Amino acid sequence: MIPMEPSKGEEADAGKVNFAAPRPFATAFKSDLKETLFPDDPFHDFTGKTLPVKAKKAVQYFVPVFQWLPVYNRKLFMYDLLAGITIASLAIPQGISYAKLANIPPVIGLYSSFVPPLIYAIFGNSKHLAVGTVASSSLIIADAIEKKVHEADNPQLYLNLIFTATLISGVIQLILGVFRLGILVDFLSHSTITGFMGGTATIICLQQLKGIFGLKHFTTHTDVVSVTSAIFKYKHEIRWECTLVGIIFLIFLQLAKKVKQRKPKLFWVSAIAPMVAVAVGCIFAFVVNAEEHGIAIVGPLKKGINPPSLKNLDFDPKYISAPIEAGVITALIALAEGIAIGRSFALMVNQQIDGNKEMIAFGLMNIVGSLTSCYLTTGPFSKTAVNYNAGCKSQMSNVVMAVCMMLTLFFLAPLFSYTPLVALSAIIMSAMLGLIEYDKAYHLFKTDKFDFVICMAAFLGVAFISMDVGLMLSVGLALIRALLYVARPSSSKLGNIADTGLYRDVEQYPGAISIPKTLVLQLGSPIYFANSGYIRERVLRWVRDEKANKDSHGDDVEYVLLDLGGVTSIDITGVETLVEIRRCLEVQEIKVVIVNPRLEVMEKLIVTNFIDKIGKERVFLSIKDAIEGCKFSLAREKGNEEH
Amino acid sequence: MIPMEPSKGEEADAGKVNFAAPRPFATAFKSDLKETLFPDDPFHDFTGKTLPVKAKKAVQYFVPVFQWLPVYNRKLFMYDLLAGITIASLAIPQGISYAKLANIPPVIGLYSSFVPPLIYAIFGNSKHLAVGTVASSSLIIADAIEKKVHEADNPQLYLNLIFTATLISGVIQLILGVFRLGILVDFLSHSTITGFMGGTATIICLQQLKGIFGLKHFTTHTDVVSVTSAIFKYKHEIRWECTLVGIIFLIFLQLAKKVKQRKPKLFWVSAIAPMVAVAVGCIFAFVVNAEEHGIAIVGPLKKGINPPSLKNLDFDPKYISAPIEAGVITALIALAEGIAIGRSFALMVNQQIDGNKEMIAFGLMNIVGSLTSCYLTTGPFSKTAVNYNAGCKSQMSNVVMAVCMMLTLFFLAPLFSYTPLVALSAIIMSAMLGLIEYDKAYHLFKTDKFDFVICMAAFLGVAFISMDVGLMLSVGLALIRALLYVARPSSSKLGNIADTGLYRDVEQYPGAISIPKTLVLQLGSPIYFANSGYIRERVLRWVRDEKANKDSHGDDVEYVLLDLGGVTSIDITGVETLVEIRRCLEVQEIKVVIVNPRLEVMEKLIVTNFIDKIGKERVFLSIKDAIEGCKFSLAREKGNEEH
Repeated sequence: MIPMEPSKGEEADAGKVNFAAPRPFATAFKSDLKETLFPDDPFHDFTGKTLPVKAKKAVQYFVPVFQWLPVYNRKLFMYDLLAGITIASLAIPQGISYAKLANIPPVIGLYSSFVPPLIYAIFGNSKHLAVGTVASSSLIIADAIEKKVHEADNPQLYLNLIFTATLISGVIQLILGVFRLGILVDFLSHSTITGFMGGTATIICLQQLKGIFGLKHFTTHTDVVSVTSAIFKYKHEIRWECTLVGIIFLIFLQLAKKVKQRKPKLFWVSAIAPMVAVAVGCIFAFVVNAEEHGIAIVGPLKKGINPPSLKNLDFDPKYISAPIEAGVITALIALAEGIAIGRSFALMVNQQIDGNKEMIAFGLMNIVGSLTSCYLTTGPFSKTAVNYNAGCKSQMSNVVMAVCMMLTLFFLAPLFSYTPLVALSAIIMSAMLGLIEYDKAYHLFKTDKFDFVICMAAFLGVAFISMDVGLMLSVGLALIRALLYVARPSSSKLGNIADTGLYRDVEQYPGAISIPKTLVLQLGSPIYFANSGYIRERVLRWVRDEKANKDSHGDDVEYVLLDLGGVTSIDITGVETLVEIRRCLEVQEIKVVIVNPRLEVMEKLIVTNFIDKIGKERVFLSIKDAIEGCKFSLAREKGNEEH
Repeated sequence: MIPMEPSKGEEADAGKVNFAAPRPFATAFKSDLKETLFPDDPFHDFTGKTLPVKAKKAVQYFVPVFQWLPVYNRKLFMYDLLAGITIASLAIPQGISYAKLANIPPVIGLYSSFVPPLIYAIFGNSKHLAVGTVASSSLIIADAIEKKVHEADNPQLYLNLIFTATLISGVIQLILGVFRLGILVDFLSHSTITGFMGGTATIICLQQLKGIFGLKHFTTHTDVVSVTSAIFKYKHEIRWECTLVGIIFLIFLQLAKKVKQRKPKLFWVSAIAPMVAVAVGCIFAFVVNAEEHGIAIVGPLKKGINPPSLKNLDFDPKYISAPIEAGVITALIALAEGIAIGRSFALMVNQQIDGNKEMIAFGLMNIVGSLTSCYLTTGPFSKTAVNYNAGCKSQMSNVVMAVCMMLTLFFLAPLFSYTPLVALSAIIMSAMLGLIEYDKAYHLFKTDKFDFVICMAAFLGVAFISMDVGLMLSVGLALIRALLYVARPSSSKLGNIADTGLYRDVEQYPGAISIPKTLVLQLGSPIYFANSGYIRERVLRWVRDEKANKDSHGDDVEYVLLDLGGVTSIDITGVETLVEIRRCLEVQEIKVVIVNPRLEVMEKLIVTNFIDKIGKERVFLSIKDAIEGCKFSLAREKGNEEH
């Protein structure tokens, strides 16, 4: 083997391992910072461009509308027009329903599908995302505000706090985006989101029983126990007419979904089904004078577009804790949902989504929304899927939807005042039933028990305690798991695979042959304070076991080879641990050899003088080299003894 | 190359990679649980033994006294006798001083060196650890209790809450030990402890200025700002006689330390110096009638050994939060300190310390202590070092110390009532000065900037805010770092090192040669929810960069090899990420090849059908094999094209 080109400053006799001086702190820090905050290297095609080109690229980067609008044409618009009208027909019933879920006037739900989509069309970078309100965030926001102010007691203050929560949510999303803290959203795992969505959908479904049964009284709590007991408590209020209508709507909506599942091309059936339900409901309510039969209707809806709501924002310290809580939780949940959904659709057409830019777009749309009588919006799954299936080609479909909503607000709003509440309940229930993913939970159970536990913690926590407790429980478990991953990294004993230079885990490859007098251990993960105690114990245990094993063969361990190829980084405590391991083994007359430390690890080992202590001749580039080196010194020692 | 022995159930054509069925859940779970809670495999030599032998071994395991006492002899005892007397001479002044620090009667400090060492001698497994009170925990416990009850207002209640805190601390330590949660202590890194100890030592030193200056009034706050302003506020109370005596004692004690540093054999000079200071101080105070010259003395000390204190324990809900806070923090700090110290001395003589067993011993000694008028004890560094240097051979030295303390309590206690407070302050200051490790902080600064920040967060937090805030700040930062380690694992591009089959990081080994049409990426760390988004971005960025790079050479990427050898585990989200990476790359007509997945990763890939999706022929045991495989299919494709 020929030694590699030695880098400058390196001694020629250092052999094949690169002992070059570590990178200066500034370089290493810059590289770490980049990997932490700019993993997607957003400015990669800026290098070597002139200033005007750079400026143009920067504007296009931060405001994507400048990127897609100049190349937009009539053909693309025809697609977006169709998609926009389709999602508008979904936005109207969803807007009214979810606003009812948040206990705010239904028209706020319609407002929320007018301004935010326009803002998203300018700043958003997903071509498929359809902006709108979502059930889970509507419920969370209502739940948090209800802790301070009951909607029934002071509807105006309640509404003002909802706007305040929306502003806070938007500001948090903007800040996260600007400081590129998308990393926080990474800690909401798929399992947590699956469980959380399932739990939220369950309690929302149960709450809709109020509407389906036509109850007048109900609980303000959201957990399963309170809700079911409330139904039993007020069961004398159940109106059979209402229940019957509700069940009919529900069956209709579920059938429409089945059609889509059977024939994906007929997706529009399920897309316009809610609108049909609302329209039929309105006509029915108007014709039969439904209110007299115990079927409540939405009630007066004001004509006209969003009034400004700057002066509605309320930062009274007496209440501020509630909108802050609502804002923080919904900001993260909405981001996680919106980004995940935008990303999965983008993946289908091999487009890349920059999570941090999406956060900025979401933040801006919620800030502007909070000033124009909108409440929290994000990219809901149902709407986005419809948008995608309807063939949208760009953010223009959101503009089309916004224009449709504007027309509705100007001319059609009063018509919707006849919408029966039971129809809205049926629409919400039908949407929510699709969010309880039994099969995904079962898949988790089959493939990863811990992920299943994380998922169930969110589900059961949300269903039986409260949404924030469920979420925190699940995130807490996921974090503990993350810490356990690093606190207990796996290590394995390697053996030689016959007739190759390969060394692999003897447990995984039972045919791999142990090397006489030598124990080859593969470490993985970073070595640092949280796992260094464990790694020391584990290595010493491997040695003890090996000795116990070899004793019976009359053989002894003389070398321990630590393969650090899988160790991505090491801290001071980690280096101290290697020193301790070495000291413990030297006492037992076992020599420690280091194999293939990676760049960052090597830097740390050099800075801390570990390499000098152990000697450069004890560091090898590959296990094969190391074993040959050990054999050579074994032979030499034997030779010396014989002399 | 000959394929390895195929394991049962494996298809013969699977080649060298082991695609054997995953281990059943129970096996994998048991193995994970063992690694998490029993990394040291405590029962390893139980297998194959008869029941009586097992029972005997179990008793010896849980109660180490049965292990060492039967083989104990007179010769060993002579060593322990000397060591025991030496540490007793240190225990008396330290006991009185630290009790003053905790604002409790000095005799409690003496009691605390009588009962707990006896308990430790039975259950402890370190031969060198000397039990006693420590300054930091004394201050933490006082600080927490002062929040609820001022010592000056109700000394008896204050003392009772101190006992309660000690009991809580002991119970927590016992529970942690029984449930083998030593893993929690792992999260207190060396950097945190260095900073915390330095910060505590700084504020304790500053507080001793009260004693040195002979002030009558002082602040109850512990932060640097409050303490220095208190000194300025009460500077008219400064007594020069007291200050002079204090400085003389301090110089004497520091000189004694210097002697030890110069000639380690004269360690006993610094070991008995505090006792000499106390004795000289007593005689001086008695002769010159010190109190009349503004030099306060300790005051009456009761004769007799520890009275029971069961009825003193106070669980009044009004105050209970204070002892709980004190108990939790001191339990962890005392464990971290005691275990770390026990371990480092054990390492010197190649003895193994089981952290979990130590926790049980500490827990029992504090529980029994709280019932016999003792407050929190652990294994202080200074005392343990003296014990080790004095040549102790077993836990018997603690018994000797306890007997000495008993004799002192019976006969000599009243003599110590003349101890001048200024002497105690000088003893504490002198001990604390040694705990501020400038050189260690500088070492951290030079070798690891983040560790330095963690250390300084603890130091500055403790010095300028409060002890618990400083500790939490530092642990929080350390946890964030731990999570960042897993959220942003390093990945690198590999190249072939000329004339070898080795593939190494091209950044680390600039001579490594890239492979035509192929990008070899090495991933590390576990792949799971917290880093899967990053890994996807990073891999796609590697591919993009490689394409941009190769474009200029008129070459194109056709294969991406993912070397998973360093990936220790993977979760559902991680597998989904691999699927996404594959899908994204297939769109670009790039094929993904997996190299050398480890046991746990392979299991997960099989269970989730990833292997079936990608095809077994796309999984290789080594990079070399993979590249040969790719070349072969490239050639075949070319051949097909030519036909």
